[in-house]
Amino acid sequence: MRANEVPTEEIRRDPAAFADRVTADGRLDRRAEAGRYRLVVNRACPWAHRVVITRRLMGLERAVSLAVTDPRQEIIGGEPHWVFTEETGSPGGLDPVLGIHALREAYLARDPGYTGGVSVPGLVDVESGHLVSNDYDRLALDMATEWGGLVRDGAPDLYPEPLREEIDAVGAEVYRDLNNGVYRAGFAPDQEHYDAAVGAVFDRLDALEERLSGQRYLVGDTVTMADVRLFPTLVRFDPVYHGHFKCNVRKLSEYPALWAYARDLFQTPGFGDTVEFDHIRVHYYWVHTGINPTRVVARGPDPRGWLAPHDRAALGGTPFGTGTAPGPVPAGERVPAPA
Amino acid sequence: MRANEVPTEEIRRDPAAFADRVTADGRLDRRAEAGRYRLVVNRACPWAHRVVITRRLMGLERAVSLAVTDPRQEIIGGEPHWVFTEETGSPGGLDPVLGIHALREAYLARDPGYTGGVSVPGLVDVESGHLVSNDYDRLALDMATEWGGLVRDGAPDLYPEPLREEIDAVGAEVYRDLNNGVYRAGFAPDQEHYDAAVGAVFDRLDALEERLSGQRYLVGDTVTMADVRLFPTLVRFDPVYHGHFKCNVRKLSEYPALWAYARDLFQTPGFGDTVEFDHIRVHYYWVHTGINPTRVVARGPDPRGWLAPHDRAALGGTPFGTGTAPGPVPAGERVPAPA
Repeated sequence: MRANEVPTEEIRRDPAAFADRVTADGRLDRRAEAGRYRLVVNRACPWAHRVVITRRLMGLERAVSLAVTDPRQEIIGGEPHWVFTEETGSPGGLDPVLGIHALREAYLARDPGYTGGVSVPGLVDVESGHLVSNDYDRLALDMATEWGGLVRDGAPDLYPEPLREEIDAVGAEVYRDLNNGVYRAGFAPDQEHYDAAVGAVFDRLDALEERLSGQRYLVGDTVTMADVRLFPTLVRFDPVYHGHFKCNVRKLSEYPALWAYARDLFQTPGFGDTVEFDHIRVHYYWVHTGINPTRVVARGPDPRGWLAPHDRAALGGTPFGTGTAPGPVPAGERVPAPA
Repeated sequence: MRANEVPTEEIRRDPAAFADRVTADGRLDRRAEAGRYRLVVNRACPWAHRVVITRRLMGLERAVSLAVTDPRQEIIGGEPHWVFTEETGSPGGLDPVLGIHALREAYLARDPGYTGGVSVPGLVDVESGHLVSNDYDRLALDMATEWGGLVRDGAPDLYPEPLREEIDAVGAEVYRDLNNGVYRAGFAPDQEHYDAAVGAVFDRLDALEERLSGQRYLVGDTVTMADVRLFPTLVRFDPVYHGHFKCNVRKLSEYPALWAYARDLFQTPGFGDTVEFDHIRVHYYWVHTGINPTRVVARGPDPRGWLAPHDRAALGGTPFGTGTAPGPVPAGERVPAPA
C-alpha cells in the first residue's frame, strides 16, 4: 500500500512492480528454500496482511523470516516510504537481516533505475538483497500451493482445486467493492466518487451478511483463501474505514453474521494473532494527511470486542478440514492481545 | 457556532457578543412582543438547536418567526459566515423578512464597528434589523420562563424552580464533557488534547447511560432544559461526531439506555420535528476543511433508526407533566422525516 494523499482520480492500484514466482520445484522464476527469503511487511497494510496470515496458516515462519516496518512512513525524496525504526524494534533503524532502512533499497538493489512505487508486502532475497516480488495476491497463493515440503505438517488446503473458481469469483467481488472499495470511498476526490464507492461497500457487506448467515466460511466448509482475502478488510473496518474512510453507514459490529464470522476467524490461530490494532490505527490516521491533516489518531472501539464468543461452530465446518491449527506464534513476532 | 478551521488551542467558545434580555414585562432590556423578533438559526448548529426546540415546546412559533440559513457557510472577508441562499429557500439569497444575506449584517446594524465573531442563534429585532442576542443558553431559558402570555396554553415548565440547581449542575457537566467536548475532540490540534477530550466524552456518556437506565428523563419526571441541552449533541453524535470528530469509541446506538432515551425525545413533538439530518451532515463535513479537506460528506447511518420503538414509558414520567404536547410544526418550518 502506498497512497497517502488524496488522488485526483479514484484509486487504481499499481500492478506489482516485480512478480517473480517462487515455487518448491523452481520451475518458474525462483526456488522456494528455507532461509532464502525475507518477507517485509507492515502490520497496518491489508494487502501485506493476507500474506502474513497465509505464512502463519501454512507454517512457513521458519522458512521465510518476517521484517516489520514502522506504521509511520518516512518521506524520502518527496514520497512516503516504508522504513525500519528503533521505535518499532529495529536497532539503529536498520533491518537486522537485510541491513536496509527503507524497503525501497531492496527495489533499487533489484533495479537501480527503478522509479515506481514501493509497496508492502515485499519478498526479498536475503543474499542479494533484491526484491523478488511485491505481488501480494500471487505471493499468498504461491505460499498456499507451491511451497511443497516447506509447509508444516497439517497445513490446510487454502485453495482447493474444486473450489478455486468460486474462491476467485467471490474474491473478485470482495476486492472490487470492499478491499479496494474502502480506499475508493476514503480517497474519493468528490462527492460523486464517494457516493458510488460507499454504496458498493455496503451493498457488498449486505450480500456477505446474507451469505454468511447460513454458512461458517465464505466458500466451502473450511478456511480458504476467500476468507484470508476478506479478513484483513473486516478487521480494519471499525477502527479505520468506518470513520477515517467515511464508511459510516454501519459498523462491522452491526452485522450480526459478518461480525460473528470475523470474530470466529480472529479467534482462529493464524488470524487474530497477526493483528496489531495500534499499528493499524496509527498508520492510517498518521499517514493520510490529505484526509486527516492533524494526524490525530482516533481512539476507536475497544478491541476486546473481538474476543467475545461467536457461536459459529453450530453452522458446521471446521477451520482446517483434515489439517490442524498452526502452532504458537514464534517469539519476536508476537502482537499484543486486545486490551 | 463559528469555528471552521483547526484552532491552535482547544476550543473555547466566545462569550455572547450581544445578550439583551427579553422578557414579557420588559423589566430588563427588551419586551417580548409577538412579531417583534426573528430568530436566525442554522439547522446544523447544536447551540441554535436548543433554542429551536424550546421555541417549539413553548409554542412560540407565531410570536417569534424563524429564519434558516444555509448549512454551507460563505466566506466573507476571509471568515465563514451564515448566509441565506436560494438553495435553502431564501429567494434572491435574502431573508424575506430581514432583507439581509448574511447574519453579520444584523450584528453590524447593531454595532457598525463590530469585528467579533458571528454565531447562530441570533435573535434580531425586525423593525431595526439589530441583533438583540446571540446568547443561546439565555435565549432558551428566557423563552422557557420569561415570555409570559406569549407561550401556548399547556406549555411545559422546562425549568421548574425546585429542579433548577440540579438541571444546571447536570447541564454544566454535559456542556463541558459532551456539548463542547466533542468539539475539543474534533478540533484537537494534537494527540494529547484529543486523548483528554475523547476520554471525557465517553466517561460522560457512560455516566449518562447509567443515570438514564433507571429514569426516563435527565432530571425529574418530565422533559426539562437538561434534556433540551443534551438532545442536540446526541442527535448529531452518530452522523458527525463519531467519525468527523473522531469520537469513535462507541456509537450512541451502542448505549442501550441513552439511545432509547434519545429516540424517546426524538419521537416527542418539539424534538425530532426540528432535526434536519442533511443540514447537519452537510454543514460539518463541508465547512470544516481543516479536518476534512475534500469536503466529501459521509453518508452516515440510516436515520430511520430514530423511529424505532423506545419502550421508555415503563420508566414512568410524562414528557410534559401537567402540560400538553406542542401542535403540528407550522407550514414552512417542516423538516423532512427520516428516510
